[in-house]
Amino acid sequence: MRIDAVDFFYASLPTVTTAVDGSQDALLVRVRSGDDIGWGECEASPLVSIAAFITPPSHGACQPVSASVLGRRLDKPEDILAISADVAYRSMDVLQASHTYSGIEMALWDLLGKRRDVPVWSLLGYDRSHGRIPYASILFGDTPDETYDRAREIRSQGFVAAKFGWGPFGHGTPNDDAAHLFAARNGLGNDTALMVDAGQVWRTDVDAVRARWDALVDVDATWLEEPFTGSAFDAYAAISASTNPSRGPRLAAGEASHNPHMARHLIDYGKVAYIQIDTGRVGGIHPAYEVAQHADHGGVTYVNHTFTSHLALSAALQPYAGLRRHRWCEYPVALSPGAPPRPPRTRRRRPRLGAREARPRRHCRPRCAGAVPTRHTDHHRRTSGMGQRPMKIDEAFAALLDRVSSRSRHSPGPMFALVTSAGPWSPLAHRGPARTRRDNAPTEQKPGGSCSGWSPGNSAVQRG
Amino acid sequence: MRIDAVDFFYASLPTVTTAVDGSQDALLVRVRSGDDIGWGECEASPLVSIAAFITPPSHGACQPVSASVLGRRLDKPEDILAISADVAYRSMDVLQASHTYSGIEMALWDLLGKRRDVPVWSLLGYDRSHGRIPYASILFGDTPDETYDRAREIRSQGFVAAKFGWGPFGHGTPNDDAAHLFAARNGLGNDTALMVDAGQVWRTDVDAVRARWDALVDVDATWLEEPFTGSAFDAYAAISASTNPSRGPRLAAGEASHNPHMARHLIDYGKVAYIQIDTGRVGGIHPAYEVAQHADHGGVTYVNHTFTSHLALSAALQPYAGLRRHRWCEYPVALSPGAPPRPPRTRRRRPRLGAREARPRRHCRPRCAGAVPTRHTDHHRRTSGMGQRPMKIDEAFAALLDRVSSRSRHSPGPMFALVTSAGPWSPLAHRGPARTRRDNAPTEQKPGGSCSGWSPGNSAVQRG
Repeated sequence: MRIDAVDFFYASLPTVTTAVDGSQDALLVRVRSGDDIGWGECEASPLVSIAAFITPPSHGACQPVSASVLGRRLDKPEDILAISADVAYRSMDVLQASHTYSGIEMALWDLLGKRRDVPVWSLLGYDRSHGRIPYASILFGDTPDETYDRAREIRSQGFVAAKFGWGPFGHGTPNDDAAHLFAARNGLGNDTALMVDAGQVWRTDVDAVRARWDALVDVDATWLEEPFTGSAFDAYAAISASTNPSRGPRLAAGEASHNPHMARHLIDYGKVAYIQIDTGRVGGIHPAYEVAQHADHGGVTYVNHTFTSHLALSAALQPYAGLRRHRWCEYPVALSPGAPPRPPRTRRRRPRLGAREARPRRHCRPRCAGAVPTRHTDHHRRTSGMGQRPMKIDEAFAALLDRVSSRSRHSPGPMFALVTSAGPWSPLAHRGPARTRRDNAPTEQKPGGSCSGWSPGNSAVQRG
Repeated sequence: MRIDAVDFFYASLPTVTTAVDGSQDALLVRVRSGDDIGWGECEASPLVSIAAFITPPSHGACQPVSASVLGRRLDKPEDILAISADVAYRSMDVLQASHTYSGIEMALWDLLGKRRDVPVWSLLGYDRSHGRIPYASILFGDTPDETYDRAREIRSQGFVAAKFGWGPFGHGTPNDDAAHLFAARNGLGNDTALMVDAGQVWRTDVDAVRARWDALVDVDATWLEEPFTGSAFDAYAAISASTNPSRGPRLAAGEASHNPHMARHLIDYGKVAYIQIDTGRVGGIHPAYEVAQHADHGGVTYVNHTFTSHLALSAALQPYAGLRRHRWCEYPVALSPGAPPRPPRTRRRRPRLGAREARPRRHCRPRCAGAVPTRHTDHHRRTSGMGQRPMKIDEAFAALLDRVSSRSRHSPGPMFALVTSAGPWSPLAHRGPARTRRDNAPTEQKPGGSCSGWSPGNSAVQRG
């Protein structure tokens, strides 16, 4: 079978703020091959990524991603690897290409898994999938009090681990940062793991990290993530070499890797202890799998990097599904709920969760479901897989986005289209509930269910 | 003074082939601040790079490049460094941003140099500039005979060094490649340096390089460039460690570096002996300068990577202008002469040089001019600089491209706008010669003159 079409769907909140909240827009990818469809998601900057697919060529090594994808054979995993190699070669000078292709690659695996009725992790060679512990990923508050409140909220939701990042952290004094760290620790209590994401704020400044290290040790941080720019291996290695690995945090990084080499280098030269891979940037699922294998062999812990949709989350879990030791799963807990438009560039309190299904259940403490999401199901073809509820997001999502792209009078215009729930921010919800043939209520979820869907979660957005 | 405007000018041949000839399109950048103008050039994929400037933001760390540039202060070099840091931070998740910003950063230096009436290399801290030896950069022929012919042609033009790359090299057997290598050597004669560019063809396959090593030694190649993907440090290091540094080629790489860290890593971990930096990709002139300093301190030779216009070439020479030891200069000898449209994806004999001014003079053997291009001149403000002919490309090029962008009835539509000559492919030439107030013939050039202009060469495209 050939790849017949690749369609991109760009969705965005009406107003995007400068908060480092990656769920304010999204770029979904739909691949069609014969009667089969696969879905993927690119991270980040949707319009630039679309440009890298459709741009005219500059020369033979600067071709659009489309040149290596459309019309290609898609019968077996090796076909995906061949396409990936061609994209890397023919689009080597289009820097954005790896972000663009990441979502496509996901969709190719999704399609192949559905066609063969097997989970993607098995296509990768794993014989089973292991459970993961989700950690809530959330921003620091503007004040320590706000950070404390958020920590309490996270704890009340049943998480056993939380990662705080960005916001004011690193922009003030070491004492300012310590106040946020202790607020987070006090809010979480001593039985909840605390990770810290510095968001590259110190670039290459090793001393800035050293000035905060005692506080990080005191709050028993599990890791310090991205204190430096992603390529500053020397700086990472300097901290790794000068701190006690048995007491206090270890270093984590890797989200910016746009090929497996970059992630390997962070391990081999930067000496990080946790390698964090965004499947939507690194080139897709298989490059992430290569990194996971390298990490596993080197005693480094692989963690997914995910801050957008549950489609991305599910795809991000496949590469290390079969590796028991790597227990953490980044779980974006505060997805933008489509709040009313706000003026850009103002710092506002982050909106509360509006999407029920995006909120983990209390009973996902201490573990989110017994298995990582694995089964690619299609409502019309099968109704169960690996004990999970059937997926029907393909059709619902496609219908939703087709409506947008066709610019019909029903087009909701700019919107947030992360259709993981029927919460008040769902574009479809504003038009009254649509019904599938089988359901007339939001889909019941298994424990941790929203962490267990391939497409954007067990959607309650239903077909009309 | 503030940065008032950043304008992009995209120019392309009517038909772009899949030959790895980077001069088939170009993306020029014009920055305005008050009455001053600076020019730069981005490498590569013009429309994707433009998208990274104008895209709406996705979140605080995924902002368009414009968010960090427009309206900023531009009074001193430190202002440029501050803008660069903000681009790196605020656009950290827009992968294409560094390609986009590279051209802007060049233009900022150009503008500042003009405003202060000093060469950019002096703004970087150098107290003088040193001469360079240009090597002709050209593709392998489709057959060894064709490679031989090209080598003879290069030799006849007076070059003392030539780099052959891409084409069929690496796609056949080691014997096939050896035939091309010996053809190149025989054509050049024994008194001309020979470099070889493998164009990443073996990706990470160390054995493929070893199978060709004896032939590379036999033809006395100066370097082997990019046998592997740019991030495959292990593979580079494996070759560097297992070959004799005193006999045979050394490894060269670095053109894909889109920040200074990546280039440093190729030196520190990949153990390359030549680091090749494209100022239009690495983030601009100052990041390239950082790499040059690191290379110089580490005993590695810095070389510019340039295969587009002479604007890019001139900008590429500034970062190492003051470093005497680094003698080589990549000189793109076969810029596309605007050949008639050809069907894409067919392999054709490359067109002969059509642009007189893009062809180095015989007397540039053995050295192309006595000094690297240094002076930023403006026809209306001064008429000489460092002994070079006056530049007037700012006005000519701006007029040409304004005509395109305004979509007037005179718009030539898709075209090749690398206005380094008045050759038959010049869009303006098709409309009859335009005249400046001072000139009515192609500008006379000093020896190696086309290697000595800041903007796209000493253009003979003139204003009407």
